[in-house]
Amino acid sequence: MMKPRIGLVGTGRMGGQMALCLADAGYDVTVVYNLEREAAEAVAKEVGAVVADNLPSVTAQADVVFTVVSDDQAMRDIYRPQGDSLLTGAEGVIFINCATLSPEVHQDVEQATNAVGAMCLEAAMASSIPQAREGSLYLMVGGEKKVFEASKEVLEVLSSSLRYIGKMGDAARVKALVNMVMNANTAALAEGLGLGDSLGLDLSMLREVFAQTGANSRVLETDAEDMQIRDHDCYFSCEHAAKDSGIANALAAQMGIDSPISKATEAQYRKLMELGLGELDKSGVAELTFKGRKGHA
Amino acid sequence: MMKPRIGLVGTGRMGGQMALCLADAGYDVTVVYNLEREAAEAVAKEVGAVVADNLPSVTAQADVVFTVVSDDQAMRDIYRPQGDSLLTGAEGVIFINCATLSPEVHQDVEQATNAVGAMCLEAAMASSIPQAREGSLYLMVGGEKKVFEASKEVLEVLSSSLRYIGKMGDAARVKALVNMVMNANTAALAEGLGLGDSLGLDLSMLREVFAQTGANSRVLETDAEDMQIRDHDCYFSCEHAAKDSGIANALAAQMGIDSPISKATEAQYRKLMELGLGELDKSGVAELTFKGRKGHA
Repeated sequence: MMKPRIGLVGTGRMGGQMALCLADAGYDVTVVYNLEREAAEAVAKEVGAVVADNLPSVTAQADVVFTVVSDDQAMRDIYRPQGDSLLTGAEGVIFINCATLSPEVHQDVEQATNAVGAMCLEAAMASSIPQAREGSLYLMVGGEKKVFEASKEVLEVLSSSLRYIGKMGDAARVKALVNMVMNANTAALAEGLGLGDSLGLDLSMLREVFAQTGANSRVLETDAEDMQIRDHDCYFSCEHAAKDSGIANALAAQMGIDSPISKATEAQYRKLMELGLGELDKSGVAELTFKGRKGHA
Repeated sequence: MMKPRIGLVGTGRMGGQMALCLADAGYDVTVVYNLEREAAEAVAKEVGAVVADNLPSVTAQADVVFTVVSDDQAMRDIYRPQGDSLLTGAEGVIFINCATLSPEVHQDVEQATNAVGAMCLEAAMASSIPQAREGSLYLMVGGEKKVFEASKEVLEVLSSSLRYIGKMGDAARVKALVNMVMNANTAALAEGLGLGDSLGLDLSMLREVFAQTGANSRVLETDAEDMQIRDHDCYFSCEHAAKDSGIANALAAQMGIDSPISKATEAQYRKLMELGLGELDKSGVAELTFKGRKGHA
């Protein structure tokens, strides 16, 4: 079977690394598009793609189009019903949407693409930039099972752990829940370490004890040392954490589920944004819980 | 070196299992004491000890006395300055205090025991009843290093992981922090699973995804399935969780550290107590976050 031609909409850091990864695997990345053309040109040069002037031109030159946009509104914009839209001439094209968005947007896009004879999937990532480059993303896929099967080969290039979650929107839901729990665990860890520090405890000892007890967690592995040494270079920003916990809390409110821990977590990340620290990595929440640090009262 | 004679004050489930474990290892558990004499008699029978009528009688018949009492006040009572007290005739005796208490009590007891020529340690446990029986407790020890060294042999009988933490009170502090973080992670997990359930997601799938992502944690391993199937048989009660998160939050307030996540966690566990569900295992916090369960609004 011939490899599908790949298009890419949204050439940010994540999209760019995905394009490189696919090109390395022998895929023809034919066309890229970005609102800021310069970013598109940089990626296009690296993978030998053309830069599209508009969205229908992306659709026309690709069989599979990956989209990595920043938010719900950007997603609705590229799938607008008429005019400069990916939907123009889209019959038979598969769209794979990789941004973290609200479940409703994914469902709406599925309806819109199906209406023009195209297909789509959502591929939610529980990993970051380096994994995109290496093709070792943890990908959670929502959409029709048959579209998933048809896209499996190209998705496996990007992913070391590919997981079909269920209907369109469900991957976004699961991702929101993953980040909801992850962010809460991170904010809780920052409290434990900050309090330990104020009590004069050796934090390296404390981290070791946490690792061997009921306090252990993935974020202990990934964020505890960063909290201790104040290395908040960004993998997943506080702003992002606020947004994702916010999505989860909105879902909870909608479903009538009380989520006080996640609400307190969202409030911590919003506070960091108010303090101008939203660009820090999520470990930056420790700036609020260690005496003498930037966000400490 | 001859094995020290062992005394035990507080023959609840934990103390009883510790006595059995020590007896199995060839230690002579000579004397036991409990406010409710019947409980003491049951343990005494199993390990061939006598039941003491009062506390000085425990001190008189043992070289190392383990105490497992329920709270700060009970601890102060058994070390009262005069009268029915473990301190009477205590010169040369080592007291090892295993209850989870406030750091100040441990420090006060150290002072009181030193004043009569006795020694003491705190041994905080990050494990439960079955580990006490098997001698596989995770023990965090605070106190003077030389007392720790002198007690190492008998502590190793009880523990598969023995850790010297620092000065008296520090083990209680570390334990409070462990439980603070553990309880918050548990309450956060309950929100993620409860919301996932309300969204119609397959919880077994969701738990697997959590385990492979940033949402992973020790409590995911120990409590997530219990939350799903509502198995809240008690290992560590909601009441206990409320108490321990409360100790941590009080310490935080004292040190001027804000702990909103841990406060929200304490509030959840207090709510369960108000609902008469304080005896449930800590996984019972999911009764608040799953639609249609006992504690759901």
